[in-house]
Amino acid sequence: MITKNTIKTIASLKQQKFRKEQGLFVVEGRKMVEELLSSDFETVGLYATEAFLSGHPAFAGAEPVSTVQMEQMSGLDTPPGILAVAKIPTQGEIRTSSRFVLALDGIANPGNMGTLIRTAEWFGIGDMVCSPDCVEIWNPKVVQATMGSLFRVKVWEADLPPYLLQARSEGKAIYGALLEGENLFGMREKPEGIIVIGSESHGIRAEVLPCITHPVTIPRVGDSVTESLNAAVAGGIIMAELTR
Amino acid sequence: MITKNTIKTIASLKQQKFRKEQGLFVVEGRKMVEELLSSDFETVGLYATEAFLSGHPAFAGAEPVSTVQMEQMSGLDTPPGILAVAKIPTQGEIRTSSRFVLALDGIANPGNMGTLIRTAEWFGIGDMVCSPDCVEIWNPKVVQATMGSLFRVKVWEADLPPYLLQARSEGKAIYGALLEGENLFGMREKPEGIIVIGSESHGIRAEVLPCITHPVTIPRVGDSVTESLNAAVAGGIIMAELTR
Repeated sequence: MITKNTIKTIASLKQQKFRKEQGLFVVEGRKMVEELLSSDFETVGLYATEAFLSGHPAFAGAEPVSTVQMEQMSGLDTPPGILAVAKIPTQGEIRTSSRFVLALDGIANPGNMGTLIRTAEWFGIGDMVCSPDCVEIWNPKVVQATMGSLFRVKVWEADLPPYLLQARSEGKAIYGALLEGENLFGMREKPEGIIVIGSESHGIRAEVLPCITHPVTIPRVGDSVTESLNAAVAGGIIMAELTR
Repeated sequence: MITKNTIKTIASLKQQKFRKEQGLFVVEGRKMVEELLSSDFETVGLYATEAFLSGHPAFAGAEPVSTVQMEQMSGLDTPPGILAVAKIPTQGEIRTSSRFVLALDGIANPGNMGTLIRTAEWFGIGDMVCSPDCVEIWNPKVVQATMGSLFRVKVWEADLPPYLLQARSEGKAIYGALLEGENLFGMREKPEGIIVIGSESHGIRAEVLPCITHPVTIPRVGDSVTESLNAAVAGGIIMAELTR
C-alpha cells in the first residue's frame, strides 16, 4: 500500500525545486506511461486507480491507489488514473548527432516547449539545446505536451552564445527565426545546422544574434497586420521547410 | 465608480453560458485592448488598475478599479491590469472572400484555437468556419492566444459536411490534414480552397472525410516514431505551404 510519505513526495514533484532535489519527474496518462515504459528512462514508481486498472488489465503491475490519493499526486486538472515516477537522466556533455539541431532561446511557455520537442522528433531532429532560462523540460505541462517525444529527443541545457559560436567556427549553418531575415522559402542551401527559435515575447536575444549565419523569416501573405507567429508554429514551419 | 453588480457581471463572462446570455466577452492586456479599440468591435467597458494607469497615461479614459476588483473580473492568473468588455458580433450567413478558408473540425484546446486564428491571419486567411463542437472563440484563453487576430479574421460556426459539400460542388478544392494523404510538399496545384484541420484527439471525423478532395500529409523525416503533430503546428505548416 502506498504510504502518506510517498504521496507527499510525488505531489511535491509538481514543483521544480523538489524535482531537482529528488532527481525525479512525473508522467501521466495511458499513452504517456506506455511511451515511458518502452523508453530508456528508469521508472521508479507506477500507480493507478482501481477504475483505471479494471479497464486496463495490461497495467496490473501498477500499485493501486484511491481516487483521492491520485488527485493528491496528479499535476493535471483531470487525473487520467495512471501515473508514473521516473528518474531525470543525468546530462552529460553536448554530443549531437542529428542533421539539424534545435536551439531554444528563452522559450517560457510549457505548451510551446512540449510542442517544439514533439515537432522536432517528427522532423527527425533528435537533439535540442535550451538556454538556461527556458522552462524546465521536466515540468508536468511540458512532459504531457511532448506526447512522448521527450523520451526520445535528447535535450541539453547550455548558454547559447558559446555553444553556437563554437558550432559556427566548425562551419555549421546557424539558422535563426527573425522578423527581418531572408525568405525561408527562398533558401537555396539546406545542408545541416542549428535552428534557433527565440522566446515568445522577445524573440532571439541580442547576445545570440551575432551567432546567426542564416537569418530566416516566414513571409506574411497579403496585407496581414499580425505582428508575429506563435513560437511553436514558427518553429514547426521552419523545421518542416529546412528538413524536407 | 464601478458597482458590485458590474464586477459580478464581468466576472460571470468567464463562463460560456453568461457570455451567450449577455452577448459580451472580455479582452485583457495592453496590446490586446489596443487591438480591440482599433478594431470594428464595439467596446462597452474599459477598466484599469491605478498601477496600470500610472504607467500608461494613454489609457486615462479607462475606469479605475482596485487590484482586488481587477482580480475578481480577470480570467487570467496574473491580471495585466487592463480589461475591456466587448460585444460579440452577430453572425450572419457565411460569406467568405479570402483565397483560402480554414475549416476546423472539433478543435477543443483553447490555445490551439487561438493560435490557429493567429496563424490564419499571418497567411492571409481572413475567413474561418468552425464545427459547432469546437471550443468557443470568445473563451478568454482563445481570445488571448489570438494576439488580436480574432478582431480581424472572420469566424463562422457551421456543420462542416453540408458547408464543405456545397463548396465542393462549386468546384472548390477541399484540403484535409490526414495521416495517410498525399505528400504536402508534392502538391502541384495550389489554387484556392478550404483547408480542414481535425481535432487534437480524433483528427477529421468520419462524416467530414468524404468532403475532402485533396488529402494532404506532412511527411515525417527519418525514422521518427512520433504519432502526430500538434493540430496548430500541423495547421501552420499546411497553411504556410499552400498559401506561399
